[in-house]
Amino acid sequence: MGRLIVEDLITEGKSKICLLVIDGLGDIPKDRPTPLEAAQTPNLDAITPKSALGLLDPVQVGVTPGSGPGHLALFGYDPIRYKIGRGLLEALGVGIEVGPLDLCLRANFATKEGEIVVDRRAGRITTEECVRLCQKLEGIDHIEDVRIRIRPGKEHRFVVVFTGEGLSDAVTDADPQRSGKELVKAEPLTSKAEKTARIINQYISMSADILKGEPRANFILLRGAAAHPKLRSFPDRYRMKALAIATFPMYLGIGKLVGMETLNPGPGITQLFVSYQKNYDDYDFFYIHIKETDKAGEDGNYEEKIRIIEDIDHNLHILVDKAPDVLAITADHSTPVSLRSHSWHPCPILIHSRYLPSDGLNRFTEKNCCLGSLGRIAGIDLMPILLASGLRLKKYGA
Amino acid sequence: MGRLIVEDLITEGKSKICLLVIDGLGDIPKDRPTPLEAAQTPNLDAITPKSALGLLDPVQVGVTPGSGPGHLALFGYDPIRYKIGRGLLEALGVGIEVGPLDLCLRANFATKEGEIVVDRRAGRITTEECVRLCQKLEGIDHIEDVRIRIRPGKEHRFVVVFTGEGLSDAVTDADPQRSGKELVKAEPLTSKAEKTARIINQYISMSADILKGEPRANFILLRGAAAHPKLRSFPDRYRMKALAIATFPMYLGIGKLVGMETLNPGPGITQLFVSYQKNYDDYDFFYIHIKETDKAGEDGNYEEKIRIIEDIDHNLHILVDKAPDVLAITADHSTPVSLRSHSWHPCPILIHSRYLPSDGLNRFTEKNCCLGSLGRIAGIDLMPILLASGLRLKKYGA
Repeated sequence: MGRLIVEDLITEGKSKICLLVIDGLGDIPKDRPTPLEAAQTPNLDAITPKSALGLLDPVQVGVTPGSGPGHLALFGYDPIRYKIGRGLLEALGVGIEVGPLDLCLRANFATKEGEIVVDRRAGRITTEECVRLCQKLEGIDHIEDVRIRIRPGKEHRFVVVFTGEGLSDAVTDADPQRSGKELVKAEPLTSKAEKTARIINQYISMSADILKGEPRANFILLRGAAAHPKLRSFPDRYRMKALAIATFPMYLGIGKLVGMETLNPGPGITQLFVSYQKNYDDYDFFYIHIKETDKAGEDGNYEEKIRIIEDIDHNLHILVDKAPDVLAITADHSTPVSLRSHSWHPCPILIHSRYLPSDGLNRFTEKNCCLGSLGRIAGIDLMPILLASGLRLKKYGA
Repeated sequence: MGRLIVEDLITEGKSKICLLVIDGLGDIPKDRPTPLEAAQTPNLDAITPKSALGLLDPVQVGVTPGSGPGHLALFGYDPIRYKIGRGLLEALGVGIEVGPLDLCLRANFATKEGEIVVDRRAGRITTEECVRLCQKLEGIDHIEDVRIRIRPGKEHRFVVVFTGEGLSDAVTDADPQRSGKELVKAEPLTSKAEKTARIINQYISMSADILKGEPRANFILLRGAAAHPKLRSFPDRYRMKALAIATFPMYLGIGKLVGMETLNPGPGITQLFVSYQKNYDDYDFFYIHIKETDKAGEDGNYEEKIRIIEDIDHNLHILVDKAPDVLAITADHSTPVSLRSHSWHPCPILIHSRYLPSDGLNRFTEKNCCLGSLGRIAGIDLMPILLASGLRLKKYGA
């Protein structure tokens, strides 16, 4: 069956829509209460019975989403069609602004002896060392007509961004993938990618010259070339001025990628929510991202995941007091404590709006979400529901 | 993902399927009981525990369907692929029979001064006046090889249908859209539409000659050109003789469009149901349409919506007594009283059949539908379920 292009139904409105993404929120109801079940959440409990609950599969049933596809789906972009490549995600993660002419690559400092990469991580040099080495490489600011930016990451990792016409991500990695193997050059996979492969290889060779005297980090590897997904911007598609509020660069980066304005209020859930409060009058759509629940899940830290949910609940009144027309609380994927990783479990979702049912369920938990009126929806169904509930969609057909 | 063509699985059967469409039935469970919750429905209550309940999104989650797409979906036609254009719906609404060679247009009587349309509605002339003027225009019964039919609507509105080979809906409106603007001619959007544009413009010019002496309605505007969607007929696809029973021309028209026979028993729910009873032996599939619930919703009349549901319930035994193999009760869209318009809320659905679960739910309400065994289905999933429950679908694959 065909799928409607929802932006064809958009109508201007004055409603405010707030999407709170609690990263990795969902867990597995099993032998003990889930963090959502165990947390004391009086403020959530107060709005839950008047909200519509459900479950959301960000990408596809049974599929564990990365943060990129998870967020794209929440914002209404088909995560199968639009891809955020590894290099691009890394670039967003270190706070580089990425545009349509950019090609992003993940990079390692490495140790080379003769033609062999003896250590792909240059003995895991320190982050400070990485910063110093990146400064040395900053001298290479262009090759041919391509501008080059570089940004240090953690330990031996950094990011390289090429900017110019005619770049392509159809190149192989300039990385032997294992230590003790011979150097590997980037190869073009299509004729259009020849320029890109040439520039990658030239950049590696010029870097090696600069790094020649270094005891460990005397070489670099480049991999995960990723172009900008060239998507139509969120404010343009939905005719809403949108603000992304987050503290982690990657999430601000994803917001920027889809054309949102961004704000980093610094650490603390109170600060996140207060930023929303202060900017409430100036935007139509707010995307607020909380990272700490995902971290707790990945650490397998049950108590910490509970504590963060309680912290969110404690501050929830700041969101609720503004009475946005639509308030949605969900996640970009689940991160169950028992798995210590992202997972395929559908995300619990709660939407509070004048024009959505009051499901009358007493708590926002994974189990109650199975009983909610939203049913089990796909990630890309979220934006149509939010827009419809904000009375921003016209009728389809007569 | 691919989708099976359900008609490839059709097998002949003797089962009877009855689809009762209670237009706009669904509402929003919020601060007060919904009309379905509030209505006294002893007869519905009697069959509900032995039925399967669920929610149905006619077109797509979050999308508000017009009556055209809503019904096409219920009948198993992809409402994104098959479009019922505005002019066609208008033609069905005034009871014109539309075939594959027809092109339907909405028309206005207007007032012209020189080259300016000074009033797009000719001062909202009376319906009687419209009838008189349409009779004058009936003289133009063809242009070139195209036959022309005309039918008055309400006030200044009427419908024009062209019949002939090589007509196309790829033309712009011959309508300035606002009063006080210059005349606008129809323009072809493709080379295949040149004939159509020429005939539209000629028809307008010939009409203007006839209307020359009229004080107000001295001109006509034509817009919303819509061709027949050229779909394979319902009886042919499903190998069922089908009868549409309704009182509003538009719904009989939609039935006719998909190849059903039609019957208008006149006002009253009893009459609708008695027609079904009388014709029970002669058809395999019955589509019965009740309009009044939608009207009550659009009027924001809570009490009236309840009253009509109770009236339906009071007559329900007429449907049930015939013991059709499959009895489905749903809607083509929701019309919540608080919104006074069609809405995106999924439609409650109840299906009573020997081969579907008895969900054991005590009442047919929006909330219970969240808990039903049908889950949340798309509109085009309905016909496969009805056909399967009527044992009219073969196994797919070996």
